[in-house]
Amino acid sequence: MFDFSITADDPQTAAHMGTAARTGIFETPHGTLLTPVFAPVGTQATVKTLTPRDLAEIGATLVLSNTYHLYLRPGTHLVADFGGLHSFMGWPGPMLTDSGGFQVFSLAQMRKLDPDGVTFRSHIDGSLHRFTPESAIASQEDLGADIIMCLDECAEPLDRKYNEEALTRTHAWAARCRTAKRRPDQALFGIVQGGIFGDLRMESARTLRALDFSGYAIGGLSVGETKEQMYATLDVTVPELPANKPRYLMGVGAPEDIVEGVARGIDIFDCVLPTRVARNGGLLTRQGRMNLRNARYAADPLPVEPGCDCYACQHFSRAYLRHLFKTEEILGLHLATVHNVRFMIRLMDEIRQHIAAGTFGAFRETFLAAYRLPDQAVRHEQKEKRRQRLEAAKGQA
Amino acid sequence: MFDFSITADDPQTAAHMGTAARTGIFETPHGTLLTPVFAPVGTQATVKTLTPRDLAEIGATLVLSNTYHLYLRPGTHLVADFGGLHSFMGWPGPMLTDSGGFQVFSLAQMRKLDPDGVTFRSHIDGSLHRFTPESAIASQEDLGADIIMCLDECAEPLDRKYNEEALTRTHAWAARCRTAKRRPDQALFGIVQGGIFGDLRMESARTLRALDFSGYAIGGLSVGETKEQMYATLDVTVPELPANKPRYLMGVGAPEDIVEGVARGIDIFDCVLPTRVARNGGLLTRQGRMNLRNARYAADPLPVEPGCDCYACQHFSRAYLRHLFKTEEILGLHLATVHNVRFMIRLMDEIRQHIAAGTFGAFRETFLAAYRLPDQAVRHEQKEKRRQRLEAAKGQA
Repeated sequence: MFDFSITADDPQTAAHMGTAARTGIFETPHGTLLTPVFAPVGTQATVKTLTPRDLAEIGATLVLSNTYHLYLRPGTHLVADFGGLHSFMGWPGPMLTDSGGFQVFSLAQMRKLDPDGVTFRSHIDGSLHRFTPESAIASQEDLGADIIMCLDECAEPLDRKYNEEALTRTHAWAARCRTAKRRPDQALFGIVQGGIFGDLRMESARTLRALDFSGYAIGGLSVGETKEQMYATLDVTVPELPANKPRYLMGVGAPEDIVEGVARGIDIFDCVLPTRVARNGGLLTRQGRMNLRNARYAADPLPVEPGCDCYACQHFSRAYLRHLFKTEEILGLHLATVHNVRFMIRLMDEIRQHIAAGTFGAFRETFLAAYRLPDQAVRHEQKEKRRQRLEAAKGQA
Repeated sequence: MFDFSITADDPQTAAHMGTAARTGIFETPHGTLLTPVFAPVGTQATVKTLTPRDLAEIGATLVLSNTYHLYLRPGTHLVADFGGLHSFMGWPGPMLTDSGGFQVFSLAQMRKLDPDGVTFRSHIDGSLHRFTPESAIASQEDLGADIIMCLDECAEPLDRKYNEEALTRTHAWAARCRTAKRRPDQALFGIVQGGIFGDLRMESARTLRALDFSGYAIGGLSVGETKEQMYATLDVTVPELPANKPRYLMGVGAPEDIVEGVARGIDIFDCVLPTRVARNGGLLTRQGRMNLRNARYAADPLPVEPGCDCYACQHFSRAYLRHLFKTEEILGLHLATVHNVRFMIRLMDEIRQHIAAGTFGAFRETFLAAYRLPDQAVRHEQKEKRRQRLEAAKGQA
């Protein structure tokens, strides 16, 4: 169980970057993952707007769900009573849960840290809760995902002092999670932290490596640092991780970040980006994001992305999808999500094919040249709006 | 084209009620309808939350869309440029459009009637528009549904004087619609009005019958009168309609009203009820509506309706669906809609089987005995909330 074998190493990236882009096969109790793999996020035991059969048709293989959210609603014990997440939400394939730590630090209203764990108030109703390394593992054993995570502390990436303190807790908690874990049908991953500080990242990778996890995650990235800082952090971190274990870059990412992550030897990715931007009318194409609400698409008979084999592109015009967004029809959110998740799955398929064929380097260049990044000002504005909504939600709770 | 043949008359209802419950086959350019048939409503060129293939799997055969809404967004000319509604929204089966009259009288912010037509302000942006009998037909020819409707005036059902005046306009407009209609691949239905006044309804039916429409609709019901008044109105109206033409009860309805309408010889029904109550967490079962938000379902492992063959009931528990509603997940709206529309389609299947077998009378009694009606106070409260939301929306426009 949880055999991981590398099926191809890309010689070009190995020569240029020290670590190779690679393809692999990762066996889990609920099915085989071909890596590099992208996991759509099913925060509350559902990938927003998609049924499990939609996910299967789209070609998703790994689905992530969030322990923090499921702990609060409907409760991890209730999910356990239903035989775990797979049967509760009707997804038969491989699943991954995070530990809840990230949301405690980003969503909860109040948090009080001590060496033993963290006490926080629910962002929903302000009720008081406590996570410890042991309880995070117990919750994830209730949920029953194939891949589970250590409780960690995600610090402000540019704050060195905070990262030093947080790392001490994260490493102590990792060891306790390792001890607490009981189920043999779950693979526990350690999470490397350390912000953008190379020495902290290397120390973290070595510390966790000594604990011999089934896989290694890199956390605390794509949370405020620049893309260059993120890539540089990967450059120093990945070489410290064992080559024969899966590497998971948490919460990443945007298509361009996935290509860059693969180039640095990452095997597993997850991100809300494709589903979240879909619900804002942002459609992913190889040329970049298309804003479907734009008037230029009002009478456009083309599919969102000509050549795409998703249900939305096979059956509907940009004009129809734009109409659904302008009239605030739920079907628009669904069809945009179908396209964006399929876009990511097709991207991963193509990445694996190029690695296997030894042409990933050229693919990476071609992809990045064609993929127009969203305007930084627009991205900042969107992030700021989200932050304000979250603040408002906290204020109401 | 538009052949309508009666395949069975129910002798029991014929003896008791004057008109027989009946099954029929109605041929349309986009497929054959087995009647009695229920049409889910796709207000804005989408049955809310459902794809066309969901509709096909659910067994829907006829889909209704609203000319008023499509006229405003995206515009009927644009739909025509896309080859009509069928290709714009990707629904290959039979379709029906209303004339827009009902929404002008219920939604528009201001309306000014004259013998030639009606001028109104959009409920969306307050812009000024005008519908005439000729323009209502032209819009529906742009949309290209198989069954189209005359422009009519839906009056307050209990106001006799208003109904008398409105009926004069409705009849004059029906004759003009008849003259204006050009496309041979569309069946035009006349709409009987007259509120709850039997003599007006009989006069209206006779007047329209003389114009020889392809079918006859009964409008202006389920808009404020009691159920007893609605049934009594059907009792006097249906016998005045030609037996060899399809009869359509517009905007009805609730499962109990459909059974009672069928008993009075109605062939076609449409209503937003199953889709709208689904989005409020109201699930239809043979015992009545189930409110999924109720805490009693929090750990309930049963499907919404044991024995139901819909995708939601085949794959998910009440506990999971309740979780989706409590966490405001869009998938909950979708799965509840799938169930409710399938409930209606299965009900119609069963009704047709019982009519064919001569057992509809007993079925009707059994159904009505088991089906618990929503509390009248709850229904009133829901209607009032909707009215207030509409008023608020008008105020913003």
